[in-house]
Amino acid sequence: MSLSIGVDVGGTNIVCGAVDADGRVLRKLKRKTEAHLGHSEVLRRIADMVGEIRETLGSEHEVIGVGLGIPGLVDPKAGISLNSSNLNWRNIPVASELEALIGLPAFIDNDVRMYVYGEAIAGAGRGSGHVLGITIGTGIAAAIVLEGQIFYGYKALAGEIGHVRMEGVDEQCACGLSGCLETVASASGMVRQAKKAIREGRESLLNKAFPGDTLENLTAADISKAMDDGDQLATEILTRAGALNGRALAAATMVLSPEVIIVGGGGALAGERIMAPLREQLLDLILPEYREGLKVVTAEHNDDAGIIGSALYARHQL
Amino acid sequence: MSLSIGVDVGGTNIVCGAVDADGRVLRKLKRKTEAHLGHSEVLRRIADMVGEIRETLGSEHEVIGVGLGIPGLVDPKAGISLNSSNLNWRNIPVASELEALIGLPAFIDNDVRMYVYGEAIAGAGRGSGHVLGITIGTGIAAAIVLEGQIFYGYKALAGEIGHVRMEGVDEQCACGLSGCLETVASASGMVRQAKKAIREGRESLLNKAFPGDTLENLTAADISKAMDDGDQLATEILTRAGALNGRALAAATMVLSPEVIIVGGGGALAGERIMAPLREQLLDLILPEYREGLKVVTAEHNDDAGIIGSALYARHQL
Repeated sequence: MSLSIGVDVGGTNIVCGAVDADGRVLRKLKRKTEAHLGHSEVLRRIADMVGEIRETLGSEHEVIGVGLGIPGLVDPKAGISLNSSNLNWRNIPVASELEALIGLPAFIDNDVRMYVYGEAIAGAGRGSGHVLGITIGTGIAAAIVLEGQIFYGYKALAGEIGHVRMEGVDEQCACGLSGCLETVASASGMVRQAKKAIREGRESLLNKAFPGDTLENLTAADISKAMDDGDQLATEILTRAGALNGRALAAATMVLSPEVIIVGGGGALAGERIMAPLREQLLDLILPEYREGLKVVTAEHNDDAGIIGSALYARHQL
Repeated sequence: MSLSIGVDVGGTNIVCGAVDADGRVLRKLKRKTEAHLGHSEVLRRIADMVGEIRETLGSEHEVIGVGLGIPGLVDPKAGISLNSSNLNWRNIPVASELEALIGLPAFIDNDVRMYVYGEAIAGAGRGSGHVLGITIGTGIAAAIVLEGQIFYGYKALAGEIGHVRMEGVDEQCACGLSGCLETVASASGMVRQAKKAIREGRESLLNKAFPGDTLENLTAADISKAMDDGDQLATEILTRAGALNGRALAAATMVLSPEVIIVGGGGALAGERIMAPLREQLLDLILPEYREGLKVVTAEHNDDAGIIGSALYARHQL
């Protein structure tokens, strides 16, 4: 059987998987990225992982190509990572350098596009011609897949929904703008708000669970847990994040008219805690014509969507 | 030379024009729509206009098809006007009925899409692969043309940017939602605000120009004129309309990444009075990557864009 390998190159980990034509993951490997060692070392590490996966596959499997999802700005046609602050890469010819190491065709795209592509083709968007996906993680970004094709926009810049300015939000964003959706509605944004509120003396179960300096260890999952335990602060933060994402998606929905909206990334692991307010706000703000038939769902593969999308993307380029 | 005929079917007027392959208008006719006479009469009237135009064209011209831009919801593939409140049409098989009358292939689409298509192909968007157009008229709507193809979205519903909820706007919209962009930032919305302010006793040159019941005759053009004469109310209304359109376009820009944003419709006739605040707000709210190379311009053909777009659309379907 012909397989392709998808690689999700994150700031912390590299995940690498062999994927079949239907998007099933047959093998998977995970290693530390150690981006501080430089891009050549990261690519060598990826080449090693690809090699190891190929060795474990029986001779009945042929690997036909590799796809990589890379954070930040990329030029997918040229195979170049233009600017990735997570990896500290600038103008790195990733595809050609990796091809030289592994002797297989390699393709790259932005990690969020690969993720949403995976979900659109082989996950929650399967069978739909108009997919809008967002990932709620460190930041928030969107990707659009139309009739099975990734939509790029001019200069391949489509998708920065995380930087839309939101009413009632005045946080300064790392991007230089202020009031950006992701400052409060991303997983990191939620954690930041919780820490801030606790430092300011707000009563919360999180306060007791993370006394003093241990507050640094607080994650979005802890906020979900606190909400389940009836914590008011956690409930407020998750509800607001859901509503703000819903509001940003409402505007995007009336411009684009998606059939399926897929919510993924770490933030989507909060499930209905974030999806219920998201859906409520979204459906409240769109015209009735859009409501009918619109599906608003969480990602099916979530953690694996990036490698599935990258692998299928490579397969479909060949 | 082969020509196609474009028809802009408005609630008040029908405009019909013979257009060449480059988008030049060779003949043009305008008649009252008189939609109250029913759709058969409107289509008969269009057929008469098409016939008259063909008669005035020399034998060196061959008309190969007709395109119609129709307000409201349409099914372009089936050639059906699904719902047009302006014309009071519901499920009218416009294309087939007109074809039977004129013996030429006929194609329909929503009027805003035809308008933006005309501008994208043969107007302000010429040569660009990623065009986002909005028309500021009675309402506000958008259309997207990608590599020369109209983008429809699921159920052909893409484009209702006029119903995005805007911060600081609380007007009730005819659509049932509230705070919609078009309630204050459309041409009608601006007129409505001016009338309301004047009725509430606000000082303005418009107050003097339209005493008592004559206030009913106030148009968006009068607001522009008052702004030129230094009127504070008119300046506020146009500046706010521009800024709100700019804000809605900023969100759309970061999701879609257009190369050109074309602003058309009656409201665009206000020129820099509305475009300056629109541009300022838009550029202020988008990431620097989007700013570079982005063109934000008014429509080139404005009044004729609808017939040019409809005619070229018909030509490109053949």
